[in-house]
Amino acid sequence: MIVLEQMGSFFIGGRRIRVADQPLRPIRYSATFAEDYDPNGSFLVEAAYVQFFLPTIRRFETPLLLAHGGGLTGAQWESTPDGRTGWLPRFLEAGVACYVIDNVERGRAGFCAIEGEWPDPPLLRSDEEATRLYRFGYGSHKFPIAALDRLSAQTVPRWPSTAKLQVDAVVHAIDRIGPCALIGFSQGGGLACQAADRRREAVKACLLIEPHGVPKAFEPGLPGTPAAMVLGDFIEEDALWRGLAAAGADGLDAWRAAGGTADVIKLPARGITGNTHMMMMDTNSDEVFGVLLTWLDEQHERGRLP
Amino acid sequence: MIVLEQMGSFFIGGRRIRVADQPLRPIRYSATFAEDYDPNGSFLVEAAYVQFFLPTIRRFETPLLLAHGGGLTGAQWESTPDGRTGWLPRFLEAGVACYVIDNVERGRAGFCAIEGEWPDPPLLRSDEEATRLYRFGYGSHKFPIAALDRLSAQTVPRWPSTAKLQVDAVVHAIDRIGPCALIGFSQGGGLACQAADRRREAVKACLLIEPHGVPKAFEPGLPGTPAAMVLGDFIEEDALWRGLAAAGADGLDAWRAAGGTADVIKLPARGITGNTHMMMMDTNSDEVFGVLLTWLDEQHERGRLP
Repeated sequence: MIVLEQMGSFFIGGRRIRVADQPLRPIRYSATFAEDYDPNGSFLVEAAYVQFFLPTIRRFETPLLLAHGGGLTGAQWESTPDGRTGWLPRFLEAGVACYVIDNVERGRAGFCAIEGEWPDPPLLRSDEEATRLYRFGYGSHKFPIAALDRLSAQTVPRWPSTAKLQVDAVVHAIDRIGPCALIGFSQGGGLACQAADRRREAVKACLLIEPHGVPKAFEPGLPGTPAAMVLGDFIEEDALWRGLAAAGADGLDAWRAAGGTADVIKLPARGITGNTHMMMMDTNSDEVFGVLLTWLDEQHERGRLP
Repeated sequence: MIVLEQMGSFFIGGRRIRVADQPLRPIRYSATFAEDYDPNGSFLVEAAYVQFFLPTIRRFETPLLLAHGGGLTGAQWESTPDGRTGWLPRFLEAGVACYVIDNVERGRAGFCAIEGEWPDPPLLRSDEEATRLYRFGYGSHKFPIAALDRLSAQTVPRWPSTAKLQVDAVVHAIDRIGPCALIGFSQGGGLACQAADRRREAVKACLLIEPHGVPKAFEPGLPGTPAAMVLGDFIEEDALWRGLAAAGADGLDAWRAAGGTADVIKLPARGITGNTHMMMMDTNSDEVFGVLLTWLDEQHERGRLP
């Protein structure tokens, strides 16, 4: 059961642009409504969307901000592709307040459809690329592969050129939310660290799920902020993931050197096997959730996470 | 307070396509990860997203399916641009189960980024067009105009060519949800009626908020299904809206002739004034919500809405 004091959403950031001198385009919107579309005028682009759920009774005060992975949206936290309960409802059941971002260009944030504003065309991830990047090729993996189709359905276009906008959006979200802990998955893990580095007082903890893009260096002065990197199975067998995990570990060393604390949580070392990159969707997603919640509880007990 | 038995999301429909013989594109995803992007492979496009919230204690059994307007997403139901509580949390507080669609191409449904699949470029609504279409130009309107910026932020691109896909997606959603009542806003109102026409047993009621695209004719045999059209203020002063309201009324006449019941609810006739097209965001959004809930309660009491 989930008991909420409040839920809703807001949009953060954005850039205002003005379009002029473009020709009208005749459009038929429906059988009963046709009009010229006027592409000229004032537009707000590059905002991000944040949906929030605030439980009435809190496990701890500090809310989480969940940052999705590349080619995905906040939907990745809600339900698994085969229809089981996802990590977002599990956090809410546990009394943890959650803010879920759809970053610039993704999901409900929309994207900048005005020609010439973004330099590159968007990328859409194929099933073949997903299978490779997410480590679905290993025999004993726990991704619900019969529902791969429903993961494909939730894969959305991304633009590689928006990386800086996406870090800015996480910073804007932190500024709006106040003190919070970040959970970042994959691309979102890198964004979380970079944003945490820029908001050192507000970010109380960083939980990085197979992150990529963790900076290699941080300026000294992190106020003891705890970070952890969670890694699934088949990392050692996979050249790409061996490299990404090593880069993540280097980033955590830098985090530690700058004054934070850092744990590397290898699920197989705890007897939790078969996890792919999409561990929030794997058949043992509840078990992995338990690992995350325990780590957050520990930071709370240590006095790091109010 | 909102008490949920369950929440989550799912994706419905979609079309599988295969891309071949396209060149690789070198992409730098982050400081630590560069790879060639392979645009070839298998993709699932044109699915729709449905987020659901199921209260523990129900006001009535039948859930609602909320269909957003053109250029918008399910976010429009959550909070107002100036940060007040939106209709979705109000329905949940009242014990009404809600399914919220992000239709094909909108929000978390993503869009088809594969070149050549969709014939036309997307449209993005300017503030000037929004001000005109949403009737923000009238002196005593109740849209929180100081927060117009946050409405602009939630405006997303749309493709006029996807109208049929969008009706299909509402039908798929109904098939997945089972018996339900539809709330359709603007473009979503037209989609709701068309989907209701194709799923006559499953759709128990249609509540249309300033719809456009309501069909002019329905085949006989609607099983007494109640429909209502809710209209805000300044309709008579506005040539565009005079026409759209008349088209909506014609559609409701056709609905009635086919066996349904139909009400036209003009808010000013009930002493509720100042409402723009975006009445779920107007400063009296709670008052308008009361009108919707009362209408639904009446259909429940009449035995039409289980």
